[in-house]
Amino acid sequence: MMKESREEEEAEVLPQDLSAAEVLPQGTDKTTDFIDSALKGLNPRWRNWVVRGIFTWLMIFLFAFVVYCGPLALVLLVFVIQIKCFHEIITIGYIVYKSYDLPWFRTLSWYFLFTSNFFFFGESVIEYFAVLLHRNNFLRFFVTYHRFISFSMYVAGFVAFVCSLVKKHYLKQFTLFGWTHVTLLIIVTQSHLIVQNVFEGLIWLMVPVSMIICNDIMAYMFGFFFGKTPLIKLSPKKTWEGFIGGAFSTVIFGIMLSYLLLQWDYFVCPITFDTSSNRLSMECERHPVFKVAEYSLPETLDGLFTLLKIPYRKFHIYPFVLHSISMSLFASVIGPFGGFFASGFKRAFKIKDFGDIIPGHGGIMDRFDCQYLMATFIHVYYTSFIRLHNPQKILQNILMLKPEDQLHVFNLLQQSLVDNNFINITSSTL
Amino acid sequence: MMKESREEEEAEVLPQDLSAAEVLPQGTDKTTDFIDSALKGLNPRWRNWVVRGIFTWLMIFLFAFVVYCGPLALVLLVFVIQIKCFHEIITIGYIVYKSYDLPWFRTLSWYFLFTSNFFFFGESVIEYFAVLLHRNNFLRFFVTYHRFISFSMYVAGFVAFVCSLVKKHYLKQFTLFGWTHVTLLIIVTQSHLIVQNVFEGLIWLMVPVSMIICNDIMAYMFGFFFGKTPLIKLSPKKTWEGFIGGAFSTVIFGIMLSYLLLQWDYFVCPITFDTSSNRLSMECERHPVFKVAEYSLPETLDGLFTLLKIPYRKFHIYPFVLHSISMSLFASVIGPFGGFFASGFKRAFKIKDFGDIIPGHGGIMDRFDCQYLMATFIHVYYTSFIRLHNPQKILQNILMLKPEDQLHVFNLLQQSLVDNNFINITSSTL
Repeated sequence: MMKESREEEEAEVLPQDLSAAEVLPQGTDKTTDFIDSALKGLNPRWRNWVVRGIFTWLMIFLFAFVVYCGPLALVLLVFVIQIKCFHEIITIGYIVYKSYDLPWFRTLSWYFLFTSNFFFFGESVIEYFAVLLHRNNFLRFFVTYHRFISFSMYVAGFVAFVCSLVKKHYLKQFTLFGWTHVTLLIIVTQSHLIVQNVFEGLIWLMVPVSMIICNDIMAYMFGFFFGKTPLIKLSPKKTWEGFIGGAFSTVIFGIMLSYLLLQWDYFVCPITFDTSSNRLSMECERHPVFKVAEYSLPETLDGLFTLLKIPYRKFHIYPFVLHSISMSLFASVIGPFGGFFASGFKRAFKIKDFGDIIPGHGGIMDRFDCQYLMATFIHVYYTSFIRLHNPQKILQNILMLKPEDQLHVFNLLQQSLVDNNFINITSSTL
Repeated sequence: MMKESREEEEAEVLPQDLSAAEVLPQGTDKTTDFIDSALKGLNPRWRNWVVRGIFTWLMIFLFAFVVYCGPLALVLLVFVIQIKCFHEIITIGYIVYKSYDLPWFRTLSWYFLFTSNFFFFGESVIEYFAVLLHRNNFLRFFVTYHRFISFSMYVAGFVAFVCSLVKKHYLKQFTLFGWTHVTLLIIVTQSHLIVQNVFEGLIWLMVPVSMIICNDIMAYMFGFFFGKTPLIKLSPKKTWEGFIGGAFSTVIFGIMLSYLLLQWDYFVCPITFDTSSNRLSMECERHPVFKVAEYSLPETLDGLFTLLKIPYRKFHIYPFVLHSISMSLFASVIGPFGGFFASGFKRAFKIKDFGDIIPGHGGIMDRFDCQYLMATFIHVYYTSFIRLHNPQKILQNILMLKPEDQLHVFNLLQQSLVDNNFINITSSTL
C-alpha cells in the first residue's frame, strides 16, 4: 500500500525539480555484517521486521541506561538528539534547494543553533541553579548579562547573514534563513522544554517518552493484525483500528508505568542544588500528586453502586495516575499528528526518511517527531495543573537581592501579613 | 541609481517565475485629489520629496497624538501596526507562491496570529497586572490556565493544518506554514517586547522609536547632500557619508530628546495598578537612572584636565542620558541592518515595497523594519542593565500564594535574615 502511493506521488508536478531522495541518505535495513549474515535467509519483509525490532529494543535499552546514569546524562542525550535532528533537517534544506554554493550557509546555521542553545539552555540553568551560579564571580557575570550576551551573539549572526547576501542567490538565501529559523523554533525551543521537564523530576520525561513509544508500537501492532479502515490519506499505513487499539493500550500502559515509577523518589523529585551538602540533590518532600490520596465517588455513580450493592464508596490512588490518563490520551490522539506532520513534510520534499542513522527506522527525526510535541504538552500541562508556587524558589529570588532590599521585602511582607491578621506582632522584630 | 539596479536585477534567473510586483500593490506617490492637484506643477522627483515629507510629518504627529492619549492607546497602535505588517508579509507569500487555491491558508494564518497574540499579550498582562486580574473569578481562571488555553488553541490550528494537507499542494502548504511561522516570530514576538517596553515607562518606547526615525531622516539627508561612497550593495542609495552623518546626528538628537522627556514623570514611570486608588498609575519614585547623579572624571582624563587648567573634575548628569548614547549607537550602526535585511527580502521576491498604504513610503513594514530590531535591543538592554529586582513585584508574587505559604515564606526569610545578622529578633513574632 505504502509502495503504490509513493509511486503515484512521484508523478506529481512540482514547481521545482526535487530529487532530494537520490542525494540524501535514506533509511535502509543495512546493519552490521554480523547481523546481516544472520538474517540472510529471511525474505525482505520479515527482515525489516526483525531489524526494526532489534533496533527498537536497542534504543529502549540505551534510553534505560542513560536514565540509570542520571539526569545530567539525560540532558546530554537531549542535546545529542537535538543536534542530530537539526543536522538532518538542515541537510534536507541544503539538498532540496541545491545550496551547495551559498556562501556561509552551513556555518551560519550551526552558529544560530549554538546561539539559540546558549540562550535557552542558559535561561533554564539560571532558573534552576541561580544560587549555585551566583557564588562564582565569573559565572555571576554570565547570569547577570546572559540575555545581553545571547542577543549580541544572535545579532552578530544576523549581520553576518545580511553581509553574506549575494545578488544571484537572494531567494535561496532568504528561503534557507527561514528554513533554519523554523527548524530552530521546532527543535531548540522544544528541546529546552524537555530539559526543563527533566529538572522538574525524571517522571516528567520517562512517562511521556514511554507513552509515545508504546503508542507507536501498539498502533502498529493493532494496525498490522486488525487494521482495515484507513485513517488519514497522509499516512496510508495508519488505520482506525491501530489508532483506537494504540490509544487503549497506551492508557493501560501509562497507568502501569506510573504506578511503577512512583515507588522511587529518584523519579518524582525535582533536581535541586542542596546548599548544605553542596551537591545536586534528588531527595524531596513529595509533591501532593505523588502521594496517595482518597477520592470519593461522584454522587451520580454513588446511586448506581448502591443499586449494584457494591460496598466501596471511596478509593485510594496516586493523583499522578489520574493525570497519566490525560497524558496518554494526548499521546495517542494528538501525538500522531506530529507524525502526520512529519510524513507530510517528507512527502512535500519527496524523501522517504529524514536520514539513515538507525537501521530499520530511518533518521533520528523519524523517531522524534511526536516526542517533541508531547514534551511541549507535558511542559504546559505541568506548569498549568501541577506546579505549585514553591516558597523555596520565591525565597531564592529574595536572597539574590541586596541586604537592604531583602529587609524591605521582609518589612512589606510583615506589614501585609499583619494587615490581613495572619500574624500578630507582639514586639518589634528590628 | 536605484532605478538602474532594479532593472539589472530583473534579468536575474530565479528558480521560480516571480511576478509578485505585478500583482502586489506597490508604493506610489498617489495621495488625495486635493494634494495631487496642488502638486501637479512639480516634476516627479521633487513631487516624491514633498509627498514623502508630508507623510513623514503626518506620521510623527499621529504618533505624538497617540502618546498624548496614553499608554493604552499606544498598545493599541502597536497592535494595529502588527496586524498590518503581518497582512503585508502574508499577502506577499500568498502571491509569490500563487497560493490562491490552497485550502484554509488565509484562515489558518490569521488564526495563528490570533493564537500567538493571545499567548504573548496574555503573558505580558499577567506579568504586569496579576493582582488586578486575580480579583475577578472569571479572569483568575484565564490567568491560571493561560498557557494551557493558548497551547490548546495552537494545537487545534496545527491539527487543522495537518488535516488541510492535500497531495497536490504539499510543498506549497509546508512552505507557507514556514512562511507564516517566521512572520509570527518576527512580528508577534517583537511586538510583544514593544508592549513590555511601554509598560516599563513611555520613555523606553519614545526614545528608541524617535532615534530610528531621526537616523532614517538624517542618513537620507547626509547621503543626499554629501553622499559619495557606497556603503552596501543591497541598498545602493546608502552611503558611508549618510551612515556616519546619521549616527552623529542620532547621538546628539538622542541626548537632547532624553533630557527633554526626563522632565516629566509621565514618561519615566512604569505603568502599575494602584491597589489603593483602584486605577492605573503613572506616578512613582523615580528609578535611579532617571535621577541626576554625580560622576567623577576617570583618572587618565584628570591629568589632561589639570594640564589644560580646566577646573571641573565632576559633572552632574542623568544616567539615562549616558545610556541613550549606547542606544543611539545601536540605532545607527546595527539598526540599518534591519533595513538591509528588508531590502534583501524585497529583492529576493522582486517587489519594490511591502505595500502602498503610506503615500511616498510604501507599506507599513517598509517603515517598521528597523523599529522591531531596535525594540528587541531596548528590551534586552533594559532587562540586562536597568531593571532592578523590584521588591514590590516580589511581594506581589508572595501575596498570590495561599496564606499558609505566605507565612512559610515569611518564616524562611526571617530565619535567613537572622542567620545573616541582618536583623535581631528580640521576641517571637508569631
